Amino acid sequence: MARDHVVGVDLGGTNIKVGVVTTSGNVISSLSVPTEGQHGPDHVVNRMVTAALKAIEAAQLTKDRILAVGIGAPGSMSHKQGVIISPPNLPGWSNVPVRDMIAKGTGLPANLENDANAAAYGEYWAGGGRGTRDMVLFTLGTGIGGGVIIDGQLVRGFFDNGAELGHMIVHPGGRLCGCGQHGCVEAYASAHYTAVRAVEAIKNGEPSSLKARLDKGLTIDARNVEDAARAGDPLARRIWDETCRYLAIACVNMQHFSNPQKILLSGGMIGAGAYLLDPVRKYFLELTWKAAQDYPAIEFATLGNDAGFIGAAGLAMAEVGGQVTARAES
Amino acid sequence: MARDHVVGVDLGGTNIKVGVVTTSGNVISSLSVPTEGQHGPDHVVNRMVTAALKAIEAAQLTKDRILAVGIGAPGSMSHKQGVIISPPNLPGWSNVPVRDMIAKGTGLPANLENDANAAAYGEYWAGGGRGTRDMVLFTLGTGIGGGVIIDGQLVRGFFDNGAELGHMIVHPGGRLCGCGQHGCVEAYASAHYTAVRAVEAIKNGEPSSLKARLDKGLTIDARNVEDAARAGDPLARRIWDETCRYLAIACVNMQHFSNPQKILLSGGMIGAGAYLLDPVRKYFLELTWKAAQDYPAIEFATLGNDAGFIGAAGLAMAEVGGQVTARAES
Repeated sequence: MARDHVVGVDLGGTNIKVGVVTTSGNVISSLSVPTEGQHGPDHVVNRMVTAALKAIEAAQLTKDRILAVGIGAPGSMSHKQGVIISPPNLPGWSNVPVRDMIAKGTGLPANLENDANAAAYGEYWAGGGRGTRDMVLFTLGTGIGGGVIIDGQLVRGFFDNGAELGHMIVHPGGRLCGCGQHGCVEAYASAHYTAVRAVEAIKNGEPSSLKARLDKGLTIDARNVEDAARAGDPLARRIWDETCRYLAIACVNMQHFSNPQKILLSGGMIGAGAYLLDPVRKYFLELTWKAAQDYPAIEFATLGNDAGFIGAAGLAMAEVGGQVTARAES
Repeated sequence: MARDHVVGVDLGGTNIKVGVVTTSGNVISSLSVPTEGQHGPDHVVNRMVTAALKAIEAAQLTKDRILAVGIGAPGSMSHKQGVIISPPNLPGWSNVPVRDMIAKGTGLPANLENDANAAAYGEYWAGGGRGTRDMVLFTLGTGIGGGVIIDGQLVRGFFDNGAELGHMIVHPGGRLCGCGQHGCVEAYASAHYTAVRAVEAIKNGEPSSLKARLDKGLTIDARNVEDAARAGDPLARRIWDETCRYLAIACVNMQHFSNPQKILLSGGMIGAGAYLLDPVRKYFLELTWKAAQDYPAIEFATLGNDAGFIGAAGLAMAEVGGQVTARAES
């Protein structure tokens, strides 16, 4: 029986998402379990292994049909060594050799990637980037992540920190970002900082309908800013508009870096739909050069939360699967 | 006799530089002739062909020892079609099929690349980037160009406009760049704009020793700014310092994009030596994140003006040469 499926695992701070994917990118089964990161790496790796085996069972397959297990994981990591270094959302983890632990636990070859890179590869392989060879993904959530595909290859970087696109500096000496730099695009246009900018403006005395939330002791998130902007609140409109404008600048910069055919936006913020996409596209065309008509299509990603495990599976197939097939044939 | 050499041609607005290079990147012969672009494309292509044949002769070789001719050319172009679209420094040129004209004129396979991309490949193959697989080149001249090598491959981009690194926006709504955008790094840190910023400050009444040049009807260039800064002129020091700081930000952004092992600086401005390199390195470490120690080495390129024709030769070998060899063997 051919090894014609791959397992993808997306390790998040809250949930582990696992799926079985065919070698042409179709999802056969998937499931999600709480991470329980507070119990430490051994516990979490056991949960990942168990979830992977359950997903294989749910797909009505046996392990001899699986090429490899691909893992997407957050934070600083070494793809080459298969080690998670220090994920911000898994406190206490330090230099965990997840790849080899998963390989041992499942008895299958394993491969470790950055989660945003995996999501980009998933969209390239099976989502909004299908049919392109050159694309960029921005993940717009609490932070801003990114992934770049050039001629069908994922950009990992010499130090395995490629495509940390949220940390491109677009405002020298600007806002302090969580990463320690000043003026990162993330420090303006992520969901977290969009909300923070609104709260700061209100605390500085700018009038806004959002102030009522603060007065009631409630927090403000990016969705609240979006809703207030849609309802006509001038401060919320300005903040939302600036967010869209910064995202457009990030797109211009990617146009001039890898010059992709498509730029995809994903993550929680794309829930705003055209209210996000239309101004990003408008500002992109306004702010980019006219020296060449090299304008990437700016679109939404299509795989939602599945992009991570699908891409992790695809990358594992590309990295490990080929070797396995070769070995089986030799 | 094996085809074990490649010809590289660097087409500039002022001069055509041609060299014969071995398949391991050693220059056997080189020469430079005026471009005479005012006489039009046919005339210039004839000069390129003649120069290529002369360089082969100077290397004491015959054409049957040459794999291919590689061309590096400025401005907007199509690598895929081998067409120069509208080079700013060759006025009147429009959609010139240079690749096929050179192939016809020399009787050899030809390949066309962007000149800064060719220079980056030259440094990667035979210069300051040797031994790396992931590097970035910034060309610091009148404008700022760039080239990116990822895992040994040149980033050309879907629209053949990859690595236009001078046009990354680092200052939204900032200075108008020659490309039509606002706030490009080129609009601050190129030789041209470094001088322009000094002139503007003087015209705005800031005192400076450089004012004497303007009073005499002389122009101010980046070298004048550098000299005045070295001599202690406060305005020139501020301008030079800002230039170095913007270049450091461009390096930070490339760290987060392709995450290279090395970033090389080339072009006229590196004549300033440590007076440029030291502050760029200092600001890089000051401005970049501490989240990971993924710091590329920032160094000067080593091939000077030869990088363009060497890289054009290397890329022609990679693109066309392989096919020629295959054809000869079939």
